[in-house]
Amino acid sequence: MKALIIAAGQGKRLRPIGDTKPLVTLLGLGLIERVILTAKKSGIKEFCIVTGYNGEKIREKLSDGKKYGVNIQYVKNDLWTKGNAFSILKARDHFKESFVLLMADHNYDHRILNELLKTKIEKDECILCVDKNPGDHLNINDATKVRTVDHRIDIIGKDLSDYNCIDTGIFICNPIIFDVLEESITKGDEGLSGGIKILAERHKMRYMSLGDNFWIDVDDKTDRKNAEILICNKLKKDTDGPVSKILNRPISLRITKLLLKTGITPNQISVLSTVIGLVGASFFFSGEYFYLILGGILIHIHSIVDGCDGEVARLKLRQTKYGGWLDSVLDRYVDAAIVLGLAYGYWSITGDTTIWIIGFFALIGTFLNSYTADKYDSIFRNGDMAKRSKFRMGRDVRLLLITIGALTNQILIILIILAVISNFEAIRRLIVFRNKLDDDKQTMNSEFIN
Amino acid sequence: MKALIIAAGQGKRLRPIGDTKPLVTLLGLGLIERVILTAKKSGIKEFCIVTGYNGEKIREKLSDGKKYGVNIQYVKNDLWTKGNAFSILKARDHFKESFVLLMADHNYDHRILNELLKTKIEKDECILCVDKNPGDHLNINDATKVRTVDHRIDIIGKDLSDYNCIDTGIFICNPIIFDVLEESITKGDEGLSGGIKILAERHKMRYMSLGDNFWIDVDDKTDRKNAEILICNKLKKDTDGPVSKILNRPISLRITKLLLKTGITPNQISVLSTVIGLVGASFFFSGEYFYLILGGILIHIHSIVDGCDGEVARLKLRQTKYGGWLDSVLDRYVDAAIVLGLAYGYWSITGDTTIWIIGFFALIGTFLNSYTADKYDSIFRNGDMAKRSKFRMGRDVRLLLITIGALTNQILIILIILAVISNFEAIRRLIVFRNKLDDDKQTMNSEFIN
Repeated sequence: MKALIIAAGQGKRLRPIGDTKPLVTLLGLGLIERVILTAKKSGIKEFCIVTGYNGEKIREKLSDGKKYGVNIQYVKNDLWTKGNAFSILKARDHFKESFVLLMADHNYDHRILNELLKTKIEKDECILCVDKNPGDHLNINDATKVRTVDHRIDIIGKDLSDYNCIDTGIFICNPIIFDVLEESITKGDEGLSGGIKILAERHKMRYMSLGDNFWIDVDDKTDRKNAEILICNKLKKDTDGPVSKILNRPISLRITKLLLKTGITPNQISVLSTVIGLVGASFFFSGEYFYLILGGILIHIHSIVDGCDGEVARLKLRQTKYGGWLDSVLDRYVDAAIVLGLAYGYWSITGDTTIWIIGFFALIGTFLNSYTADKYDSIFRNGDMAKRSKFRMGRDVRLLLITIGALTNQILIILIILAVISNFEAIRRLIVFRNKLDDDKQTMNSEFIN
Repeated sequence: MKALIIAAGQGKRLRPIGDTKPLVTLLGLGLIERVILTAKKSGIKEFCIVTGYNGEKIREKLSDGKKYGVNIQYVKNDLWTKGNAFSILKARDHFKESFVLLMADHNYDHRILNELLKTKIEKDECILCVDKNPGDHLNINDATKVRTVDHRIDIIGKDLSDYNCIDTGIFICNPIIFDVLEESITKGDEGLSGGIKILAERHKMRYMSLGDNFWIDVDDKTDRKNAEILICNKLKKDTDGPVSKILNRPISLRITKLLLKTGITPNQISVLSTVIGLVGASFFFSGEYFYLILGGILIHIHSIVDGCDGEVARLKLRQTKYGGWLDSVLDRYVDAAIVLGLAYGYWSITGDTTIWIIGFFALIGTFLNSYTADKYDSIFRNGDMAKRSKFRMGRDVRLLLITIGALTNQILIILIILAVISNFEAIRRLIVFRNKLDDDKQTMNSEFIN
């Protein structure tokens, strides 16, 4: 399915932070870039953008879309000072079948479009996504109000007093929209709502509720601030362990916001984080308390920065399988270097060789925790993600234990603790999963991996 | 969808190996148990079985189906000495919608039914799965021949001279089948083919080709032998490494056939294999050449037996997610014990502590190989599985290297080789996947795992 994006307006209220509204940045990406990349997450790769005010700047920035992995065509609307019905009508020749209609300044959770695209639509209908529980951040005076009846929209308008939800500006349209917009313009209404009103009168305007997913119309500086908060809140993952949640995530988010300005890629951050971790581990080889402290501090910094690669990737809508893979493998090398460094350092100071055996067990346990966490993820991939968090004696906790051990010069004790709890956790998971996986004892997709 | 299984006939030719044909065992399972569990793999959980000769023995064995995770109802056909049209008609009241029709003595690849269930069927049609390239094992005189035209069956019969494929006895039927069978009986034909003939005349009998998937009608001892070979050939996996393919799999298959007779479960075999591996590793702790040889031999036995759990599970159609998980985690513990044993043994003999660092690297590399193999599997889960084999410096090769090192008393060299190639392989995978995963740089399902 193709998408039509309206990016013709002037956006006066955003002028203080940017002359061309669709290019005003939000967490490292222009507003319209976010709209494109979010739609791409739902599988949309063909875009038609209607430009007006500062159109050439938008075309210059986005070009043919190749850098986003999509294809972009442009339509010019010289009547951009008039209502947006003119913008949509300009794109008429590009849409012979049903299409997605989006606003360049509206940011939204990609799951909304996923849901919308699953909905079946008749040739003479359009569907609008509506917000039944608008957040406090919404400027209600500015919003387009909607009243629904059954599964359809009854009436729409800015000055509606009796309404039950808000227009989010996310549509699936059929070419019928062009006909009703023309009809509406002849009646004197030059806005998109005018056409929607006509469809609503014919009982041909359906709605879909966006549920708990966020959307926001970015019209001024305050909106942008609110959008930042909404999007950043999404970064807190269900799988975050307690240390990550309380200690690391709030700090890594701040660092991430700084990193967004530098243009550094997520994979570069993964490598940077690894280097910090390896330098930290290399201090452990000395075994002397002073270097243990330095190493411990660096390991904690590594633990924080390790969250930034994923955050930058998600904020820039650039998550990749390779990125996740790289991060995981590099983390395993840091884990190994830490245990090796601690064992070597302790041995070189004390000459006690039992530390090697303890170190081995700590390494086995550490690896098995990551190994089973991954296995768990892949088994429950499409299952209830909330279940997952319970079983994570995660890397965040392990690294904090190591930092504490280094800062207190208790290498032997910390390696014993690590060896015991990580192996205990691995075996506990075996038992827990036995019960969990009992339900689907015979499944065709499972395979023995040797 | 429900399935109807015809299990009424006497099966005289199988008498030498069992009086009740559907219960004659094939690789540890009764023929009809295989039919039920294979259909279950395609999602069928409701069965109706028509019994005749020795029906009470079948009911006693299968009971209500709970032990297979399905539900079984029975219909008795006292006219089992007559044609099988009577058996099908007996089940008439149980089927008001389209259903799968299977023969108790036909074994088949579950992918056939998967494909068949995807096919759309009209209310007045039936579909028969046919074999266009029957194997040498087929007794052509005994087979029901089929001639197809376009997408439908033109004519069917045992004595057809002009045919282009063979009836596999796997159907999707609509209740119309009962009407045509009655009609056919009044015409004097008491076989299922009689009804199919009538549908074929009406141009309402379609066919689906089974492609490369196997099926076999088990009527005598030779058929059973052939079925064993066909099913065992399926156990050779694309992901098998060279050592597994050439050295281990042929031996493990023999052991598996013995194990099938004992009733041991796949998970019990996993534990047994782990115990063998751990005992082998414990010999390594001594460091003396004699014990190294013993350990090396046990590790090779472990490597072979490690394939049996999956084989037994697949042959008994009892693969479980938990089984795969348990096997993987236990294998990691054996891997760790082996490296720890080798390092400790060498250190206790020579007093050379560099072996600990080499051992650490060998352990890291070994783990990362398993870790990335799993990641690779989960990334390419639905992709081209053939691609996968290229990237496996698998466990089979590693264990053989260890056995060779132990038998030749070259612990230091073997640990260095293991450390170098396993870490080289881990890093090589990072590079290979960078190129492989470049194609889908932005995917919605990917996630950063921290």
